[in-house]
Amino acid sequence: MVKTMELIGIVVSLMAFAYAAWLFVWVRKQPQENEMITKVGGLIQEGARAFLGRQYRLLFGFAGMVALAILLLLPEPIWQSFSIQNIFMAISYLAGTLFSAFAGKIGIEVATIANGRCAYAARDGIKPAFMTGFRGGAVMGMAVVGACNLGVCLVYLLLADPQAVLCFSFGASSLALFAKVGGGIFTKTADIAADLTGKVELGIPEDDPRNPAVIADNVGDNVGDVAGMGADLFDSNVAALAAAIVIASNLDRISSFHQNVATVFCYAALGLLSSILGVMTARIGKNGNPTSALNSSTYVTTGIYAALTALATYFFKFRFEIWASCVLGLLVGVIIGITTDYFTDDSKKPVHVVAHASHTGPAFTILSGISYGFLSTLPAMVGTGISTLISYRLCQNIDLSFSTDYALFGISMAAVGMLSIVGMIVSNDAYGPIVDNARGLAEMGSLGDRVLEITDELDSAGNTVKAVTKGFSISAAGLTVIALLGTFMSEVNSAASQLGLKTITGFDVMDPLVFFGMLTGAAIPAVFSAILMLGVDRNAQRMVSEIHRQFKEIVGLKEGKSDPDYNRCIEIAAEGAIKELIPAGAIAIISTILVGLIGGVSAIAGFLVGNIISGLLLALFMSNAGGLWDNAKKYVEAGNEGGKGSEAHKSAVVGDTVGDPFKDTAGPSINTQITVVSLIASLLSTLFLTFSLFK
Amino acid sequence: MVKTMELIGIVVSLMAFAYAAWLFVWVRKQPQENEMITKVGGLIQEGARAFLGRQYRLLFGFAGMVALAILLLLPEPIWQSFSIQNIFMAISYLAGTLFSAFAGKIGIEVATIANGRCAYAARDGIKPAFMTGFRGGAVMGMAVVGACNLGVCLVYLLLADPQAVLCFSFGASSLALFAKVGGGIFTKTADIAADLTGKVELGIPEDDPRNPAVIADNVGDNVGDVAGMGADLFDSNVAALAAAIVIASNLDRISSFHQNVATVFCYAALGLLSSILGVMTARIGKNGNPTSALNSSTYVTTGIYAALTALATYFFKFRFEIWASCVLGLLVGVIIGITTDYFTDDSKKPVHVVAHASHTGPAFTILSGISYGFLSTLPAMVGTGISTLISYRLCQNIDLSFSTDYALFGISMAAVGMLSIVGMIVSNDAYGPIVDNARGLAEMGSLGDRVLEITDELDSAGNTVKAVTKGFSISAAGLTVIALLGTFMSEVNSAASQLGLKTITGFDVMDPLVFFGMLTGAAIPAVFSAILMLGVDRNAQRMVSEIHRQFKEIVGLKEGKSDPDYNRCIEIAAEGAIKELIPAGAIAIISTILVGLIGGVSAIAGFLVGNIISGLLLALFMSNAGGLWDNAKKYVEAGNEGGKGSEAHKSAVVGDTVGDPFKDTAGPSINTQITVVSLIASLLSTLFLTFSLFK
Repeated sequence: MVKTMELIGIVVSLMAFAYAAWLFVWVRKQPQENEMITKVGGLIQEGARAFLGRQYRLLFGFAGMVALAILLLLPEPIWQSFSIQNIFMAISYLAGTLFSAFAGKIGIEVATIANGRCAYAARDGIKPAFMTGFRGGAVMGMAVVGACNLGVCLVYLLLADPQAVLCFSFGASSLALFAKVGGGIFTKTADIAADLTGKVELGIPEDDPRNPAVIADNVGDNVGDVAGMGADLFDSNVAALAAAIVIASNLDRISSFHQNVATVFCYAALGLLSSILGVMTARIGKNGNPTSALNSSTYVTTGIYAALTALATYFFKFRFEIWASCVLGLLVGVIIGITTDYFTDDSKKPVHVVAHASHTGPAFTILSGISYGFLSTLPAMVGTGISTLISYRLCQNIDLSFSTDYALFGISMAAVGMLSIVGMIVSNDAYGPIVDNARGLAEMGSLGDRVLEITDELDSAGNTVKAVTKGFSISAAGLTVIALLGTFMSEVNSAASQLGLKTITGFDVMDPLVFFGMLTGAAIPAVFSAILMLGVDRNAQRMVSEIHRQFKEIVGLKEGKSDPDYNRCIEIAAEGAIKELIPAGAIAIISTILVGLIGGVSAIAGFLVGNIISGLLLALFMSNAGGLWDNAKKYVEAGNEGGKGSEAHKSAVVGDTVGDPFKDTAGPSINTQITVVSLIASLLSTLFLTFSLFK
Repeated sequence: MVKTMELIGIVVSLMAFAYAAWLFVWVRKQPQENEMITKVGGLIQEGARAFLGRQYRLLFGFAGMVALAILLLLPEPIWQSFSIQNIFMAISYLAGTLFSAFAGKIGIEVATIANGRCAYAARDGIKPAFMTGFRGGAVMGMAVVGACNLGVCLVYLLLADPQAVLCFSFGASSLALFAKVGGGIFTKTADIAADLTGKVELGIPEDDPRNPAVIADNVGDNVGDVAGMGADLFDSNVAALAAAIVIASNLDRISSFHQNVATVFCYAALGLLSSILGVMTARIGKNGNPTSALNSSTYVTTGIYAALTALATYFFKFRFEIWASCVLGLLVGVIIGITTDYFTDDSKKPVHVVAHASHTGPAFTILSGISYGFLSTLPAMVGTGISTLISYRLCQNIDLSFSTDYALFGISMAAVGMLSIVGMIVSNDAYGPIVDNARGLAEMGSLGDRVLEITDELDSAGNTVKAVTKGFSISAAGLTVIALLGTFMSEVNSAASQLGLKTITGFDVMDPLVFFGMLTGAAIPAVFSAILMLGVDRNAQRMVSEIHRQFKEIVGLKEGKSDPDYNRCIEIAAEGAIKELIPAGAIAIISTILVGLIGGVSAIAGFLVGNIISGLLLALFMSNAGGLWDNAKKYVEAGNEGGKGSEAHKSAVVGDTVGDPFKDTAGPSINTQITVVSLIASLLSTLFLTFSLFK
């Protein structure tokens, strides 16, 4: 049964790739005959490739070292007992990085050709432009989830070892850490440096080709939002599947119901299939509304998924408790997305209050934005808590001899359910930067006012949908790491039974080791975010110096007679991003190992809990406050509260600048930080169990 | 033995009152013969009294209702079994509010006479001015700790019921919630409204007597920093003692070592005695440095306390493990204070980086300040974790049959230790607003440049010391609520044994009810802060309208020929503060009760843990970021990075305005929120044990 489901998973993944290829060819076939768009689009594409190349080279150096460490240490140190497992685990890790890198590469390739074509298509109306943007995004969506399912199925099919799946997931997380954090620092570095030197110092317009940072800025938008976001959701999706598989494979060995792993693979394959069907049915009327087109395809996917999994559960005699947990996770995800949207939607109260407060000065833009950012954490925190609670309760009675394991399996399946429509989510998310770029290219290519109107409408739909999917993806990551906590306990106990130690039944909050871990773990996301934001600031200063140098040394640059050295700026952004990422990544990894060596598995369990709680809270706060400030600025620019150039607008711009690294660097990177820490804890559980200062 | 120690406690408390009275008379005896200072000082005093009157009237209405609820419900609903206990508990609650109110009233009285005298004394040099400011603050310090010890001793002596001590503590917390939150909203409301209308709209200088909000602003500084801070530390101190007494009295019943309650009372009395001695020895040389004078008296107090408690432990045959926990808590508190100081000290890197970033615009002031605020949470979080861990380990072996109870007792004693020098802390804290006011009065009274120089130096010492004591008091509150978590479990188990239910040995983080509670509890401090900050904003707008009305309706006000209606502004600030406080207080209280009714004691345990973790994190973040921005602005105003009037200064002012409600409204109020929630959970544990939706 497991084998069958794995094969089905592989087949559906290949279908997704085929469909992605068809969409890719379709997008490339769309006409694009504007010379200026071709030139600038080409520069963006070249820059994005240069960045990815630089990033991947550095990453694979890091990944090589980690793979070597895995080879030497996992599942057991090779000087104690060498086994072929060590090689498999190292390979699985590398495969995780490669599959994720592949999906990111595909996404960048399509996004950088779809943008110009979308702009050009807008000459013929909203329908063809929407389809170009949406199908461009869908290539990324299909590639991410296809690669994810294919990788997990292959690793488990070939090695039949849940620990290898954890290593695959750790590989994906390593890449996501680089892609998300590096991309986040890159894009905000370039954004800030371009604005400061171009708009402020030289008084040249935004996106002026004389500015050496302008291509880096566009590359950053693309790479951060497309490749970074894709790696992040790839990571969450793999981690959710890995968590479920570890618990399920343990249950299949001991419980009377043996179809747990099969259920995971079946549901994952159906999720991808639903996303394919959802993308296929996405349509917009001739003068239709792109927001409702995007949202309705999300709802269609959700409906298809619930129906298909119910049928499969009935047909294959899976357990309906597990199905219910899965669908519950999905529904809660959708509800969280909609609720979170309230705080960033420009037709709702929070955006209006922040825009109005901007009259009184930037301090009030900041204070009101931070306040609503704090408020916005409540629905997602409570919603995640409720889905944890209910899925646990639903599944604990499946087999009373193993009620805790089934309960944890229920939580992991709620995470799988929440992430089941991730193909659709990534498609919608990648649509955003494509139509955003299309708008800029339409302006540079002088395609006229009607085209600008259309691309504006497409862009605005992208922003609205992005707010919903962001709340969704943070909660999904939260539920995933809660499931990984279950995996951690499962790993600790299998290590304990191998070592002949007592089984651990839980971690008591009154245990001071747990409490010490919680307090320390809770501080890490704050420290991590701080390092990233300070890194953006430092890196932007480096790029500003480079821009000053180019204007001084390149004769005729200011007059537009010579071309600037775009690549040097891109390299500075990339180099600096990776340089600044190292202390942030290091503090997450080293603190985990330190706390584990000091306090053992109890302290690490607490550390994970504290990390999850404060990480979720801060990620939601920063992402939502950032989105809110962005939309408040746009709301003012649309002519409200005084419009462009007013005092309120100046204050709103300050809010937006603070919000940029909040929502595009620190906030979403916390997801990855939590996942990396959870996976390290699971992989090193034997070490922490056998050696620690306090017991 | 317990009785002896209680009597010693009462005697030391009376000594503290006597000393406070002597200091009060000493301060009042100091000369103050400047007419302008007398006039303005009188207005401030009158305003502060008006505010306290209004606040206490409203508070006692609320307290009356709570007392009635306690009378009806605790320890058991009177319709089930009426006992005299119900009356005692209601009286203890009211006593808690009254003792705290009394200490606050004394503090305000002395602070509003010491400010002018301190300014006047500065004509004769730094020595007499310092002594006036410091002894004025010490009156408050002695009154707070004296009232706290006297109250706890009396309640336990008369009723011998630890639950009554919890009720006394709940009373203190209720008052602290009003005093701290209300005072925080009040002071920032007035500050913002006065600045917006005076400096920005009318172009009149700060502290101009024509501005109807100017007295409200000065009153707010006084009342928020003196009465609010005093109530906060009164609350923490009582809660730490209550937590220790509940656990200790349980241990005295069952353990072979019976001196636990006696130890608590003895150490508390010695803490107060050490503070008295520390205040007595506080001296400054003729041209001495006030910062080192303040700090050295803190270190003297710490040393005296460690020595006295060691002697008492030896002499009365207490346990040295408990002594070690207590001294450890104190040492960690001092270390946290010093470490936290790094992030707000204007001679250290963070202040310089933030000041430098201000060149690039307010967005960078905010981003760098938030980043360092996040970083600053680490030492206190880890330090609190370590003191929890070590004190637990130290005490768990005192009696192996009750190792968990002794371990929790160790944590509560670390909290008692950390708060033992609170008399000294309050003295130093109250010194700050007195010399701050003195500086303003010296300016208004035209006392000359030399006096201004001296008061500036005194003020700057106040700011430095304040940063240290703030980190200290947040950590102390954190350790206290961790101890209250132990109390909660102790209460749950004594309720469980009365009801014939199974004893609870711990709360597992893998239990979904606990996890649900944690996620919900973690969101509460964020929501609470948001409501407070939005409340400040709304209330400031109300006051701005009132100021506009007065300038329109009062003939000759603008020309300085008529007096404005200061009291109307004070009333608006007070009314609005209490109105805005209600939803914030309500969400804390109602969410606790809701989570308890949904998930029972497990969910509440998780709720408390999540609340403590995120509350500590956010309180540290907001207080430290606020302090950092304040000092960065002062650093720029001192002539760095362009000085007053430069672009960097404008940005630094934005940072300071954002920081104001961070550090004076939301940040420190979170302490009180956590304590209130912890006490409600303990008091209602029987209810949550017998009735809940999920079991």
